[in-house]
Amino acid sequence: MRIALDGMGTDRAPMPEVTGALQALTVLESDIEVVLIGDEEILHKEIGRHTQCPERLHVHHASDRVTAGDAAASVIRKKPESSIVVGLRLQQEGEVDAFVSAGSTGAIMATSLFTLRRLPGIDRPAVGTPLPSIRDPFLLIDSGANVDCKPEHLVQFAHLGSVYARHTMGRAEPRVSLLNVGKEPGKGGELVADTYDLLAEEPGICFVGNAEGRDLLRGECDVVVCDGFVGNVLLKFYEEVAASILSPLGEERDVDQESGGLRDVFRILDHAETGGAPLLGVGGVSIICHGESPPRAIRNAISVAARAVRSDMVGHSARNIGSSSTRVEGMT
Amino acid sequence: MRIALDGMGTDRAPMPEVTGALQALTVLESDIEVVLIGDEEILHKEIGRHTQCPERLHVHHASDRVTAGDAAASVIRKKPESSIVVGLRLQQEGEVDAFVSAGSTGAIMATSLFTLRRLPGIDRPAVGTPLPSIRDPFLLIDSGANVDCKPEHLVQFAHLGSVYARHTMGRAEPRVSLLNVGKEPGKGGELVADTYDLLAEEPGICFVGNAEGRDLLRGECDVVVCDGFVGNVLLKFYEEVAASILSPLGEERDVDQESGGLRDVFRILDHAETGGAPLLGVGGVSIICHGESPPRAIRNAISVAARAVRSDMVGHSARNIGSSSTRVEGMT
Repeated sequence: MRIALDGMGTDRAPMPEVTGALQALTVLESDIEVVLIGDEEILHKEIGRHTQCPERLHVHHASDRVTAGDAAASVIRKKPESSIVVGLRLQQEGEVDAFVSAGSTGAIMATSLFTLRRLPGIDRPAVGTPLPSIRDPFLLIDSGANVDCKPEHLVQFAHLGSVYARHTMGRAEPRVSLLNVGKEPGKGGELVADTYDLLAEEPGICFVGNAEGRDLLRGECDVVVCDGFVGNVLLKFYEEVAASILSPLGEERDVDQESGGLRDVFRILDHAETGGAPLLGVGGVSIICHGESPPRAIRNAISVAARAVRSDMVGHSARNIGSSSTRVEGMT
Repeated sequence: MRIALDGMGTDRAPMPEVTGALQALTVLESDIEVVLIGDEEILHKEIGRHTQCPERLHVHHASDRVTAGDAAASVIRKKPESSIVVGLRLQQEGEVDAFVSAGSTGAIMATSLFTLRRLPGIDRPAVGTPLPSIRDPFLLIDSGANVDCKPEHLVQFAHLGSVYARHTMGRAEPRVSLLNVGKEPGKGGELVADTYDLLAEEPGICFVGNAEGRDLLRGECDVVVCDGFVGNVLLKFYEEVAASILSPLGEERDVDQESGGLRDVFRILDHAETGGAPLLGVGGVSIICHGESPPRAIRNAISVAARAVRSDMVGHSARNIGSSSTRVEGMT
């Protein structure tokens, strides 16, 4: 198995990428190789800082990189030699099995859609972000790809999230909740009220009802379904709360020295632990990491990509969605 | 000035209400009186626990109370002698100037709408919740009254929030942000993109652009406008994060003993400090408190109600909205 890793994605690239890749290779099965994509001179220099470079780490040259100013949709046309486009093209051509990047979320999404294509039966691929709770992490889907959704899209997200939770998060029967303003059926606006009715009848989904904002951290479900507007607002708020809390604490505290309570707080807030966010519903594995990812987050994202490939997540998604009756009328 | 306080609202009623009222009377101007509404026997017994009962604390009997099982919309008809209905009726009749309650949010909203009526020019009254940030608190509006909104409603929320921030939060020129998934104009779905265009042109609003989830705690604006679905999800998530963080910390720590960093964390997370959430856009002052409010939160909510009355917030709202050109077509 070969996993492509964008070497130019994080804010501090390529340090977190190279370190994270080396860490991943020490813990992953020996048939897994990592292909770092980016400027080969820069990457080899960074690799040279480490005493050992395993044979399973490769470099594939990409002469260009996507920057903050690039329009996401035009990256594939205007920057064909950027690390994002090169890495995803390698997957399209079957040279690698997965792609991991901490670069521009919009560019990764747009280029993944173009190269890997939507799965048959999927109208809208969605980003699923694993977030920590007081128990196990849950998957928030959609966390930003689709700001306007129809009920049928949310049902598709429920399928995609369930398959992901089962095959890469290890949940035998993933519990799916619908994000809403109250627990009772019928709560919320038209979108969620209609979605509730569809999910309650949908085969292949273990729907456990509505979840309110206050329920998310309690770890009582595995997949939380919402439209990408609410999901994105919530995700960015969560990240900022974590940063606001951890930064004043971090300046003066050492987490390993802390007693149980504060250690739990750190664990709940630390989303680096959960790895990257997969773009689900495309015909390949594309994992999006935070631009501020430390090596540990990159290492975990590579592990996630490996699990997704090993479990044939994409194949399961296609079969699961293919058997669903829920499609948006007039779309193919 | 007389402020009615629902004596039966909190989960631990009437203890927090009585203690909070007594605390408020020690700090508020001497022309302010508090009228506790509820079972007079229970209330007098609780008041009797305190050594001093100032003359400015009154009890007004209400034989019934709203419980969790009551349908919000039918409370006014089915429980006319409940503390919520009695308190708001006193305001309708001019016997008191404001109403504060930690009871059922739905029942307070529905009964306020019925007794105090919408202000002319307001299609949808909204709940504004003051939330702490790393600087001053900001007002999140709508935090739950309206799950489906039109752009014109969000513009009305911007007016209501601005008046509230100016007159009760002490912001000379309140900065208004639109909650969105990106900073740039045109980001987000149809609702927020259209709202952005309206707000940018709206007289009487100091619109500073889009705010993402990550911007909220940074304290860079005074009013954050959103529909009640997103607002409610966000509010409940914020409350739960605060509870999750504070509860493990609280078990083993004394906040006053803490050094700067952790004290800041407590301050950011402690929404009891900001008092209650006003229902804005009705013809009176109606302040909704959290069911778990401690005495300090009740005390602060009474102060907020007093400032709203003193500053003629309702009159300013009516005048401000009256001069706005933004109305939903076909509605009166």
